[in-house]
Amino acid sequence: MKILEDKIRAEGVVLPGDILKVDNFLNHQIDTSFVRLIASEFGRIFYGTGINKIMTVEASGIAIAYATSQYFNDAPVVYAKKGAVSTMSKDVYSADVHSYTHNNDYKLNVAKKFLSKNDRILIIDDFLATGEALNGLTQIVEESGATIVGCGVVVEKAYQNGGKLIRDKGYQVVSLARVTAMSDDGQIEFED
Amino acid sequence: MKILEDKIRAEGVVLPGDILKVDNFLNHQIDTSFVRLIASEFGRIFYGTGINKIMTVEASGIAIAYATSQYFNDAPVVYAKKGAVSTMSKDVYSADVHSYTHNNDYKLNVAKKFLSKNDRILIIDDFLATGEALNGLTQIVEESGATIVGCGVVVEKAYQNGGKLIRDKGYQVVSLARVTAMSDDGQIEFED
Repeated sequence: MKILEDKIRAEGVVLPGDILKVDNFLNHQIDTSFVRLIASEFGRIFYGTGINKIMTVEASGIAIAYATSQYFNDAPVVYAKKGAVSTMSKDVYSADVHSYTHNNDYKLNVAKKFLSKNDRILIIDDFLATGEALNGLTQIVEESGATIVGCGVVVEKAYQNGGKLIRDKGYQVVSLARVTAMSDDGQIEFED
Repeated sequence: MKILEDKIRAEGVVLPGDILKVDNFLNHQIDTSFVRLIASEFGRIFYGTGINKIMTVEASGIAIAYATSQYFNDAPVVYAKKGAVSTMSKDVYSADVHSYTHNNDYKLNVAKKFLSKNDRILIIDDFLATGEALNGLTQIVEESGATIVGCGVVVEKAYQNGGKLIRDKGYQVVSLARVTAMSDDGQIEFED
């Protein structure tokens, strides 16, 4: 998505440690009309696939998922909550996730009552790098028996293995911008 | 807001420990068209007040704030991030918050670059009870020199002291549903 690549080049910040910050428009401050553009692209790509529920992870996926819902008949958005690894409940689907960014472990939790076997789910997230969070979400949906129609990601670090991990499980992953390289002087390269 | 009270009566769940769960439509699963109705009410109430930025706290305030933005010329949404109390940075406004629900302390953090003295801010949150989070947000905005036009809350537990705390600081707090009592058998009463 050309306009997204331009936005990342203009407003994204590359920090030491392979960090790409887009908190200016996506995950701290939200450029709401731009997020609506992103959502419309997911709407176009997954049009006609019978999606009836959008899933994401708190907190940075919520606005994107909410905006995307309007393209799928105002489908409900369910966001997985991050909890301590000790958290367990029989009413909750859980998946263990390791965060390489924060170097800690946590659980993704989704109340069972919000997923059913008849659901056709679009998973939305802002970033895909190692794929830990996205993989956790797919595990939760698999456990529920619902169908994953596809995954919509705003920014994929294509040089990390997360995309391959999820695609090798057989899922369609659409990333609106695929970063192929970042340099310490702030240059960002995208897949042609 | 009558339709909100009806929704809470129909779908809200009262749990021991004075807990009101509305995770069916507001803060785990999101009823997106209903959140749009809530947002339109904030749009009506704060119309013409020159709001140019919406602030909230991750994660449950984000969808409501995002939806509200469209009534204020797609004003950017800035959500405060919850961090460990040890987190400190000179580039960040911080406020200490105690959570009575989870019985822990945390910091609200907002990057300084996202607040300016010229900003006219609407603060949005899903719940107001002891007022800890909302108070933290107001402290952050005060430190930035921006103007708080008002606070829009979806559900206020009017029998707790948070509303008074914020109003006594001189801020307008609009709560779309004001709960006056909850009983263990699940009855919920609202202010007339």
